[in-house]
Amino acid sequence: MSVHSARPVRGTRDILPEEMALRNRAEQIISDTYRAAGFEQIETPALEDIDLLLGSEGGENLKMLFTILKRGDKFRPAEDSEPKDLCDIGLRFDLTLPLSRYFSANKEKLALPFKAVQIGNVFRAERPQKGRFRSFKQCDIDIIGDPSIGAEIELVHTTGEALKALGFTDFTIKVNDRKLLNAFLGNKGFTDEQIPSVCIVLDKLDKIGQDGVAAELTEKFEDLSAEEAAALVAEAAQMTLDTAAQATGLDDAASDLKLLIDTTNAAAGGAYQAVFDFSLIRGMGYYTGPVFEVSYGPYGYSVGGGGRYDEMIGKTSKQSVPAVGFSIGFERIIGILEDEGRKISDDEQTFVLFYDLKDDLPAVLAASDGLKAEGKRVVLTQKKKKFGNQLKHAEESGAAGFMVFGRDEEPKLFESKES
Amino acid sequence: MSVHSARPVRGTRDILPEEMALRNRAEQIISDTYRAAGFEQIETPALEDIDLLLGSEGGENLKMLFTILKRGDKFRPAEDSEPKDLCDIGLRFDLTLPLSRYFSANKEKLALPFKAVQIGNVFRAERPQKGRFRSFKQCDIDIIGDPSIGAEIELVHTTGEALKALGFTDFTIKVNDRKLLNAFLGNKGFTDEQIPSVCIVLDKLDKIGQDGVAAELTEKFEDLSAEEAAALVAEAAQMTLDTAAQATGLDDAASDLKLLIDTTNAAAGGAYQAVFDFSLIRGMGYYTGPVFEVSYGPYGYSVGGGGRYDEMIGKTSKQSVPAVGFSIGFERIIGILEDEGRKISDDEQTFVLFYDLKDDLPAVLAASDGLKAEGKRVVLTQKKKKFGNQLKHAEESGAAGFMVFGRDEEPKLFESKES
Repeated sequence: MSVHSARPVRGTRDILPEEMALRNRAEQIISDTYRAAGFEQIETPALEDIDLLLGSEGGENLKMLFTILKRGDKFRPAEDSEPKDLCDIGLRFDLTLPLSRYFSANKEKLALPFKAVQIGNVFRAERPQKGRFRSFKQCDIDIIGDPSIGAEIELVHTTGEALKALGFTDFTIKVNDRKLLNAFLGNKGFTDEQIPSVCIVLDKLDKIGQDGVAAELTEKFEDLSAEEAAALVAEAAQMTLDTAAQATGLDDAASDLKLLIDTTNAAAGGAYQAVFDFSLIRGMGYYTGPVFEVSYGPYGYSVGGGGRYDEMIGKTSKQSVPAVGFSIGFERIIGILEDEGRKISDDEQTFVLFYDLKDDLPAVLAASDGLKAEGKRVVLTQKKKKFGNQLKHAEESGAAGFMVFGRDEEPKLFESKES
Repeated sequence: MSVHSARPVRGTRDILPEEMALRNRAEQIISDTYRAAGFEQIETPALEDIDLLLGSEGGENLKMLFTILKRGDKFRPAEDSEPKDLCDIGLRFDLTLPLSRYFSANKEKLALPFKAVQIGNVFRAERPQKGRFRSFKQCDIDIIGDPSIGAEIELVHTTGEALKALGFTDFTIKVNDRKLLNAFLGNKGFTDEQIPSVCIVLDKLDKIGQDGVAAELTEKFEDLSAEEAAALVAEAAQMTLDTAAQATGLDDAASDLKLLIDTTNAAAGGAYQAVFDFSLIRGMGYYTGPVFEVSYGPYGYSVGGGGRYDEMIGKTSKQSVPAVGFSIGFERIIGILEDEGRKISDDEQTFVLFYDLKDDLPAVLAASDGLKAEGKRVVLTQKKKKFGNQLKHAEESGAAGFMVFGRDEEPKLFESKES
């Protein structure tokens, strides 16, 4: 019999107990913060209809779909079959599109504004690289049915508080508004069709600088002279809320962003800050208003992001409903907590209860249940001949103490744990 | 623009906030019980290699695989393509096979015996029916590396305690041993190849009775006379641990089961009971020893099950390692809790904090954060013109009280909540 490889599927990973304990505590902190702020948790299936996924404005994510083969008689392959001919289901690539479908399907049972928490895995067939996986967890909060900047204020504040509760400080929440960006680029003569490609290039400002962005724009748009491109990029890079309002005439959008930034900063009391960043794009095509992104310390990637997507629910519902969401990149948060060797408080004490199969087993279980009732965690372990080794191993594994059934009346603390 | 259907994929479902709150509390109770008993949570990806899945002894589940299309150049359809030619990945149908692979991949980092908790969704393309879904949650505990009945005792006791902690009483844990069953049927002249089909028929004893089972066996096996079939079924139906030991000569297996049953019952103190049931089969082909199943009240389905699978880890590892697991059918547990209208304690109090966008917003957030710091859950809500309606709605939605920013110094309890 041949032995099958035990490696997980390419781009996915197994989670060991130590990391899992950290993940569970982090998820609990995030979930408690969201729930205390009045958000309600919901869940949607990992599977979604393939036409719904392909019909979304998921940008690059649509190229990374995992798609599921039709079953039974519906599976009819041909030489020129396209993936979408053979598949009826795909794995979700984010939690926003499923939430929109969910809201449309269940809106009679939900009061507006509906404040949702979702915590779940999403799937993208990306080229695997360090810290980037094909299955990863996201933690989203969304507010559906509130068209005002009050929704953005609540989301940004609650996300900031969740990150603070996880022990993060000095992070920055960058905010921008798609309406300002679109109006600015429209004034420069770009058509609605061109604007997304301009944005993709502008998004690289952090990485390739003003000269790099200007050069790429000149290359991409024949009508654009090198001078015009350089001027446009310089203007964008130096944009403030005041100049954005002047350049676009969108005074309301600019003053809403100002209210969002000022309120967030006042409530944060210096623990983190919100700033205007006109070069913040966010890849998804479905954003219609304010967008946000969290950057932290020296890490060259965002640890969260979101924005307003007022048109998406209209795709699965006759009525369009305003909506805005903020997603925490759970895997990146965990990666940073591990990188920085940070612990999230855990005062749990584990005791090893040694026993023998020949002991009075109901009494062994009663002793174990008694310790658990006192709030202790108990690892039942059969005594071996080399008991000294077992004891040493128990101590090394982090247990606080041990008890030998039939010999000890009470658990003993290991010497290293005695204060 | 056409509107896309908002229904979830066939056989899957959306979870509304009220059910989700119940699910989260139930999951927490199960997880706390497992963790207190020394089990450690781990996680594996929902995606597994298709050859690993197809090479397992997953029985009927292999006909219900969701399989994922190969991507890019590897997708090469032809008229005679089989699903397995076009797919490289499948969705897991249980948590046991992934755990075995996980153990083989990570065994250098895990101490033996390894006691694992897994909580996650599994996927089966079953014909949808009431209470049965294509994506559903399982909660498993497994002990790897302990060949003794001590492992079964620990699993059965811990699972019983988890169900008890959820408020279940008077449930029955049926136990049997594949070795006894195989020896009994071998003695009756069935070959190793025939025994699984005999078991499939015997498994229906509850549903179609002794006569029905005997008739099916006669039909299936030409060599078996109606009298022989009737005698075999009657013997099986009346089997006790003593007669099983006599019939098979497997005294150790029978006395191990006796120890498991007696210890479980003594520790349960009457809250639930373990019983020997020689007609308990459990569908999976991979079980090698004791098997268990939980039945509860009038429900004609099991709410949990498991068994020993000592040969499975050898498929992904050069060394075979003994293993045994017990799985709680989470969806069925939730269904029963909902059917019986039972609540799991939740003393959380929600307050609605009404505000206006023109208020001092940092002060609004500070008021909200202050209430949360006192342990209250706060739903921020913008005041509308019809404030009376809003208040009424807040009370009906279950909130304990409310506070109007700028008017009230302290939150007020709704009259219905005052004791």
